[in-house]
Amino acid sequence: MFVARRLIENFLLEDISFGDITTNSIVREDVDSEGYIISREKGVVAGLPLVETVFQILDPKISCRMLVQDGQVIEPGMVLVEIAGQARAILTGERLALNLLQHLSGIATRTARLVELATGGKAHIVDTRKTTPGLRIIEKYAVRVGGGYSHRFGLFDAVLIKDNHIKIAGGIKPAVEAARRGAPHTARIEVEVEDFAGVREALAARADIIMLDNMAPLEMAQAVDMIDGRALVEASGGITEENIGAVARSGVDLISVGALTHSVRSLDIGLDLKEIKRR
Amino acid sequence: MFVARRLIENFLLEDISFGDITTNSIVREDVDSEGYIISREKGVVAGLPLVETVFQILDPKISCRMLVQDGQVIEPGMVLVEIAGQARAILTGERLALNLLQHLSGIATRTARLVELATGGKAHIVDTRKTTPGLRIIEKYAVRVGGGYSHRFGLFDAVLIKDNHIKIAGGIKPAVEAARRGAPHTARIEVEVEDFAGVREALAARADIIMLDNMAPLEMAQAVDMIDGRALVEASGGITEENIGAVARSGVDLISVGALTHSVRSLDIGLDLKEIKRR
Amino acid sequence: MFVARRLIENFLLEDISFGDITTNSIVREDVDSEGYIISREKGVVAGLPLVETVFQILDPKISCRMLVQDGQVIEPGMVLVEIAGQARAILTGERLALNLLQHLSGIATRTARLVELATGGKAHIVDTRKTTPGLRIIEKYAVRVGGGYSHRFGLFDAVLIKDNHIKIAGGIKPAVEAARRGAPHTARIEVEVEDFAGVREALAARADIIMLDNMAPLEMAQAVDMIDGRALVEASGGITEENIGAVARSGVDLISVGALTHSVRSLDIGLDLKEIKRR
Amino acid sequence: MFVARRLIENFLLEDISFGDITTNSIVREDVDSEGYIISREKGVVAGLPLVETVFQILDPKISCRMLVQDGQVIEPGMVLVEIAGQARAILTGERLALNLLQHLSGIATRTARLVELATGGKAHIVDTRKTTPGLRIIEKYAVRVGGGYSHRFGLFDAVLIKDNHIKIAGGIKPAVEAARRGAPHTARIEVEVEDFAGVREALAARADIIMLDNMAPLEMAQAVDMIDGRALVEASGGITEENIGAVARSGVDLISVGALTHSVRSLDIGLDLKEIKRR
Amino acid sequence: MFVARRLIENFLLEDISFGDITTNSIVREDVDSEGYIISREKGVVAGLPLVETVFQILDPKISCRMLVQDGQVIEPGMVLVEIAGQARAILTGERLALNLLQHLSGIATRTARLVELATGGKAHIVDTRKTTPGLRIIEKYAVRVGGGYSHRFGLFDAVLIKDNHIKIAGGIKPAVEAARRGAPHTARIEVEVEDFAGVREALAARADIIMLDNMAPLEMAQAVDMIDGRALVEASGGITEENIGAVARSGVDLISVGALTHSVRSLDIGLDLKEIKRR
Amino acid sequence: MFVARRLIENFLLEDISFGDITTNSIVREDVDSEGYIISREKGVVAGLPLVETVFQILDPKISCRMLVQDGQVIEPGMVLVEIAGQARAILTGERLALNLLQHLSGIATRTARLVELATGGKAHIVDTRKTTPGLRIIEKYAVRVGGGYSHRFGLFDAVLIKDNHIKIAGGIKPAVEAARRGAPHTARIEVEVEDFAGVREALAARADIIMLDNMAPLEMAQAVDMIDGRALVEASGGITEENIGAVARSGVDLISVGALTHSVRSLDIGLDLKEIKRR
Repeated sequence: MFVARRLIENFLLEDISFGDITTNSIVREDVDSEGYIISREKGVVAGLPLVETVFQILDPKISCRMLVQDGQVIEPGMVLVEIAGQARAILTGERLALNLLQHLSGIATRTARLVELATGGKAHIVDTRKTTPGLRIIEKYAVRVGGGYSHRFGLFDAVLIKDNHIKIAGGIKPAVEAARRGAPHTARIEVEVEDFAGVREALAARADIIMLDNMAPLEMAQAVDMIDGRALVEASGGITEENIGAVARSGVDLISVGALTHSVRSLDIGLDLKEIKRR
Repeated sequence: MFVARRLIENFLLEDISFGDITTNSIVREDVDSEGYIISREKGVVAGLPLVETVFQILDPKISCRMLVQDGQVIEPGMVLVEIAGQARAILTGERLALNLLQHLSGIATRTARLVELATGGKAHIVDTRKTTPGLRIIEKYAVRVGGGYSHRFGLFDAVLIKDNHIKIAGGIKPAVEAARRGAPHTARIEVEVEDFAGVREALAARADIIMLDNMAPLEMAQAVDMIDGRALVEASGGITEENIGAVARSGVDLISVGALTHSVRSLDIGLDLKEIKRR
Repeated sequence: MFVARRLIENFLLEDISFGDITTNSIVREDVDSEGYIISREKGVVAGLPLVETVFQILDPKISCRMLVQDGQVIEPGMVLVEIAGQARAILTGERLALNLLQHLSGIATRTARLVELATGGKAHIVDTRKTTPGLRIIEKYAVRVGGGYSHRFGLFDAVLIKDNHIKIAGGIKPAVEAARRGAPHTARIEVEVEDFAGVREALAARADIIMLDNMAPLEMAQAVDMIDGRALVEASGGITEENIGAVARSGVDLISVGALTHSVRSLDIGLDLKEIKRR
Repeated sequence: MFVARRLIENFLLEDISFGDITTNSIVREDVDSEGYIISREKGVVAGLPLVETVFQILDPKISCRMLVQDGQVIEPGMVLVEIAGQARAILTGERLALNLLQHLSGIATRTARLVELATGGKAHIVDTRKTTPGLRIIEKYAVRVGGGYSHRFGLFDAVLIKDNHIKIAGGIKPAVEAARRGAPHTARIEVEVEDFAGVREALAARADIIMLDNMAPLEMAQAVDMIDGRALVEASGGITEENIGAVARSGVDLISVGALTHSVRSLDIGLDLKEIKRR
Repeated sequence: MFVARRLIENFLLEDISFGDITTNSIVREDVDSEGYIISREKGVVAGLPLVETVFQILDPKISCRMLVQDGQVIEPGMVLVEIAGQARAILTGERLALNLLQHLSGIATRTARLVELATGGKAHIVDTRKTTPGLRIIEKYAVRVGGGYSHRFGLFDAVLIKDNHIKIAGGIKPAVEAARRGAPHTARIEVEVEDFAGVREALAARADIIMLDNMAPLEMAQAVDMIDGRALVEASGGITEENIGAVARSGVDLISVGALTHSVRSLDIGLDLKEIKRR
Repeated sequence: MFVARRLIENFLLEDISFGDITTNSIVREDVDSEGYIISREKGVVAGLPLVETVFQILDPKISCRMLVQDGQVIEPGMVLVEIAGQARAILTGERLALNLLQHLSGIATRTARLVELATGGKAHIVDTRKTTPGLRIIEKYAVRVGGGYSHRFGLFDAVLIKDNHIKIAGGIKPAVEAARRGAPHTARIEVEVEDFAGVREALAARADIIMLDNMAPLEMAQAVDMIDGRALVEASGGITEENIGAVARSGVDLISVGALTHSVRSLDIGLDLKEIKRR
């Protein structure tokens, strides 16, 4: 889509600037090649369509044959994409294509791991606004590829009332009322609370979603009971691989995990060049 | 500088789009506040000037008093910045300011850790092109803040001849010669080699820098002996906290570590709002 | 705010391109002047902050003293703004400043008129996505200035399921369920229905908002009874000055009116230049 | 043309931002559909090529068969365009395509109405700079589609000396002389006058075009006699459907009408989706 | 003005990209300095305001004291500007500031030379569209600084009918008539002719300006007689320092010279750094 | 490549703005034509791929058959390109296409002339940063087409220590050391010196490249002897057609010539339109 294309053109400019002086010096324009993108680690792949965009911006005649699809579990040694076309374009685009694929697959893999661990309840794993600046649209995509769900995109598409808003408004009730007047009626209103008093206030103010901030799983279960379906319940703060199962079993609807995107380990994926021939 | 400002305006647009509907509904324009950016974890801080830019774009009258400087070691509970100004601007900019600060401090902290471990030689820790797309300029800055050094910025400012270039050129010698003809004479020429034969060829071709790819520390030491000051020597591939000391002691000049930027764990830093008053 | 500034810089470029050849030829740079923006028609004013931005982009030293505020009712002959500064900047910026002010005041005035007529119920007047391309952010602002409220901003910040979506999904229930799975949990789900069967289906699917499309006020009242607080009710389609009172009295929560922004009559506002002096 | 494409990409971004969360949730990527753009009101159509651009940006494979051409009179119920392609692209692009088509057809229709009424003379109906910011290029196009003509595009492509310029210059003669020195010799010089004294001064200064500001038709006829072909004569200010015939019969060459673009009523045009099928 | 600022920001980005690695390595941020821009050659200076913009983008606190103004004749050794501020900003901006100043002063100097030579008539020296892509607005400014005048800016602000248009239209008369219908009435219509037959046709078609293409001065004089004030007369093609006096004395109104901008010799201007001190 | 396309779109916008009012008025959309780009002067052609981009942006269906390649010597009267397609696109794009081709061929021709003169040694002719702002990437390309080589692109891709840096650092040695610490290890370090003392200091500091600024050829030869292969030697300053042979014979490795790009004479190249036919 045209937005992704613009984004990737800017990423290419960051890396190429006035030209790939190595490749342009060594590789003639009429050399064609075939490349293989190969997984070197187990995980969930995400970002394959962006890989294709990278290479097609550099050479519209390049072909990318996808052997797997985003969301699929990949194993070490598996060929993910076969690329054929101008060797220059493949060499120049390689690093950006891999940077994107490794980063997004890292996110998808970690998401899938947490989804797997969060059984025994109905909870969806959701992302947060703790994304890498400039990459939110593709990082949230990677979370969905990994089996997670999207929280609000930014400050504009939902109301999330936090402690500082409550402090300034003078309480949860006046804060929710102000938001109900000021925000579009199409946006849900979520309130962050830290204890049962907060839960009660949020219910009284008829919040649509109640975020339990840094509660223990047992407290969460009690909060879920108190709320009793009158609002969606979101667990947030301090979620780890160790406690996410307990959190899920507390009965919350949503578990939001900042680390999905703020602390990403790249998945190891490489590119090998095989056939080389002059046109 | 004007480039950082442009970058941050785009990051703000990603988060704010048509408006922060929570804050704008709840907080009046004439409410002022004071905020404190506080460390919750030990590490090396990086990105403070960007924090100031974030808030000043939102409200030019905001003031940021820096209590520490980029590069300083911070401890849990330490106040890093005192912010005073329009409450709306502080609340709206908070997430982006923290995302940047946490991400860059994560990079600086990890770099500092590796610098600390890489003793017993003269090696500089350097970054790679495995950066987050769109953030290279600030991620490389964070590496320097952490005590690391910069490798080439992108494909345009130095020659790095890799296996695929060698394959296409038909050998290291013709590749280096082509690069010497095609690239500006101001760019150093680096060659990636995998074994001693490669080292010898690179020396014969008079490469300026020889990258030892995925060699064991003992092999590296031998390569350093062979090269004997005729080229800079860079270790690359498979560097971990465990082996970086041995790598450094092998005598190489540079150790490049992709994980400095491709697998970043955010440093935990938060923002507290204190005083609230109507103007 | 920096977004409005960017927008207005682009609008100025459209009008000025390489230069105002009339003013630059006739008026010396060192001529100062005072201008008065004067209302020539009764209405509700909107857009004054943009006027200031227009002139300050052209000459940062210009001063704009606002004698009224956005949202105030203005009468013919009333001075709205006193501008003092470089005569060139005032003459060059005049047309864009007035185009914006007249257009937005036209929207605010029409909105206020409908708000006034929509008494006898609790309904909010809301805008739609039938805005002028490129101006949505400021047109929706003008609706709020006139006493209206904002519907969703665009396709991204709420779910609105229309007949075509229902057709493709094979019914309201599957459409709502797909949206609940696919959209962020923070977005409300609105369904457009044309008859009571639709209302019933939407209720069964637990839509958050039900849009009654082109119903007569009496039918609307019946629908409101059926829905009985289980969803917000929005009246849409065919709303005129004549029927909006009846629609409001039907008990709906929201009345959306595309004509607020798709068929705007500018409010007549002019600029007079008074004092002229050489510095 | 590439300029229209850039414009429309920005308009799409305004509406879509990070994604059409309704359509993307409900409609699978492989669903194809056919849509029909249908007139619901009589008028002159304008903007069809932009409609095609909207859909092709979203899906390059979409096809738009135009059954009418810009400038043609359309009747209620007439099919204007047959669209076939990805259902997602049709649903996502629908609103922008219609907003553009309705707005521009509203302008063309109103222009055509005034052209029809302005008989009995030789006068051309021309537009003004009272256009919607950001849309001037396409709004002026719509005026031409409706049978009108273009006045200068902006401040840069012709000289138009208004009362304030005359005041600062100290008279019409010095103003015209300054403009003749300062502006390109390729730009005509127009002077706005309010009375016969002004006409005489403008003639003496050898203005190329004389704009009669807010004169009554009888006065205009006298002015036309005085000018006697030595300058083009433009009527401006207070033109309505009622008086435009009289104005035209006064013998002026041009009648400029700000309301063509500053107070537009959209023409009612809709989009129906018909066939739906999975690929 | 904001347009020049945008332009210069892009020029700075071209030169600086991710940073001035020499200056940033060697010069500490707190070193201040004074620089002097000094002429090394006689000529007419143009571009001083752009110099100030270059440095102020890099450091808003820098001060530029102008000792001469654009349009003034400068002599070797004359100090044009005194700059004081951050040494880094002065060193980093030096090259761009000088490139602009040298290029524009080269244009102004050459223009002034031709203006001086074109005596004995009333002719204005005018520029053409043979400007350096991207620099037209400032190159045309430099021509005016040198005493020249502006021809049309581009393809949009005047009609210039050339041989190929005439060929396609089937003659000068139909071409002029088509242009009169299609172009704004505010644009003058110029016709390029090569011989007296062309002059006669252009007069018959009532062209506003007649361009004599590549005629000898004697023929031009005859053409001027034939035209006799019924159109402006422009000489074009093959103008040199040798023949421009004769061309001017032929009585033409305008002499357009592509070489003013398409073949520019930079004026030699340098920057010396004097005082250096740590803050 | 996409960068060139963006650049040329901006150049086209500068010339076309809202439309080519001459061509659009006179030439119908369905007229096709053939054009020939013809050399009118001997020289080395550069920029042909940009010509194709210009026309293809205006009409993707246009065809450009290249009869020569960049770098070839062209003679007066030689046809360089045959263009076939929409007459409008050819007429509208003509000037920009020629401006680019003439400018770049002017640079290539002058470079080739200097290369020819600089015999009797091994010296490469290289460009400088004295390029036209905004055009560096294509001007440096033209230098290479003419047989020259590229110096560093900008301030970011190599270290060049000049007198002012040395002054601030307090000598060549501390300046080089600071640069070695601060700049990427991949960038060569060049030092500008004015006398033999400078040469000695630069050698002692182990500079990679020594620039001899404004030395006489005999002095250069001595410097070359002193340096004796321990650094690349670049001659700079005051290079003319007269002395470049002597400079080359002095044994320097590189001769940098600012005038290659700061004082360009366009090569005379024109476009003729031949066949015209209605589709």
